[in-house]
Amino acid sequence: MPYVTVKMLEGRTEEQKKALVEKVTQAVCETANAPKENVVVFIEEMSKNHYAVGGKRLSDQ
Amino acid sequence: MPYVTVKMLEGRTEEQKKALVEKVTQAVCETANAPKENVVVFIEEMSKNHYAVGGKRLSDQ
Amino acid sequence: MPYVTVKMLEGRTEEQKKALVEKVTQAVCETANAPKENVVVFIEEMSKNHYAVGGKRLSDQ
Amino acid sequence: MPYVTVKMLEGRTEEQKKALVEKVTQAVCETANAPKENVVVFIEEMSKNHYAVGGKRLSDQ
Amino acid sequence: MPYVTVKMLEGRTEEQKKALVEKVTQAVCETANAPKENVVVFIEEMSKNHYAVGGKRLSDQ
Amino acid sequence: MPYVTVKMLEGRTEEQKKALVEKVTQAVCETANAPKENVVVFIEEMSKNHYAVGGKRLSDQ
Repeated sequence: MPYVTVKMLEGRTEEQKKALVEKVTQAVCETANAPKENVVVFIEEMSKNHYAVGGKRLSDQ
Repeated sequence: MPYVTVKMLEGRTEEQKKALVEKVTQAVCETANAPKENVVVFIEEMSKNHYAVGGKRLSDQ
Repeated sequence: MPYVTVKMLEGRTEEQKKALVEKVTQAVCETANAPKENVVVFIEEMSKNHYAVGGKRLSDQ
Repeated sequence: MPYVTVKMLEGRTEEQKKALVEKVTQAVCETANAPKENVVVFIEEMSKNHYAVGGKRLSDQ
Repeated sequence: MPYVTVKMLEGRTEEQKKALVEKVTQAVCETANAPKENVVVFIEEMSKNHYAVGGKRLSDQ
Repeated sequence: MPYVTVKMLEGRTEEQKKALVEKVTQAVCETANAPKENVVVFIEEMSKNHYAVGGKRLSDQ
């Protein structure tokens, strides 16, 4: 605890994801006063045909 | 905003998904008084072995 | 099935929410080829201090 | 209703998943006083590169 | 891990919720081969005006 | 995009939450290569009777 879910388009590299969970975990620790070892991060990737803004999917643009 | 997530079994065509996000976005705009360009839709697909009703997965029926 | 979650700021009236679930359900039926009685809608409301865009909460703007 | 989501690392067998939804459904019925046929279970699987504890992904350990 | 979310209508007693998390945790342990101390359960309660089946909220029935 | 959800026990101050969304947004920008204005953060608070680890709710400990 806390549990952090990051939902984003697929396509980031493993290096980017590795850095993402490190930095986000650090940000949560510092501000929410939680021990680092208790912070959990989930990454959820979306594909462009499953994500729409303004009624239009990214795959249709 | 609003953010709409539609969770359903896999198997719909791209045309169905395209129409789904269009119609759902329109429905949200009209009723929640939100500008169309602010409405976000996520589609999440489930497989039959990851969805159960009454204790039985669809893949076991 | 499908299961639809609509996440939005608190403040809509009961009439708006009633219309929202009706119209969204109709939109899903027509496009995802699902029987109306199977469509489930959840409304989740956020407060302005729990929602941030660009690093700034709505309550801080 | 209730709707139960079980999020776990990928790798369980179909037999394990089948038993999981059966036992979880039974547990919910007995304690939440819900008819068995109304209980819905979703399984969501994570991969090791999308799950981090303490700022480190399982795939980096 | 696993992380279990139980979404249900508000109204259960504290005793019911206590039993629910115990039994669900036990069910997950036995079937997913996870140590009991690693199983996390979240309860999410819905009100009747935020839950609709077939386009009709429970509060409108 | 990305969309970040931080789920944690209730009790943080407004100042903590304000700093949390700022720092988390910054962390996501830097690592996921996303423009700051596109990053969305949701805070979800849990009460101690709706969160259990190892089959025991925090409110029962």
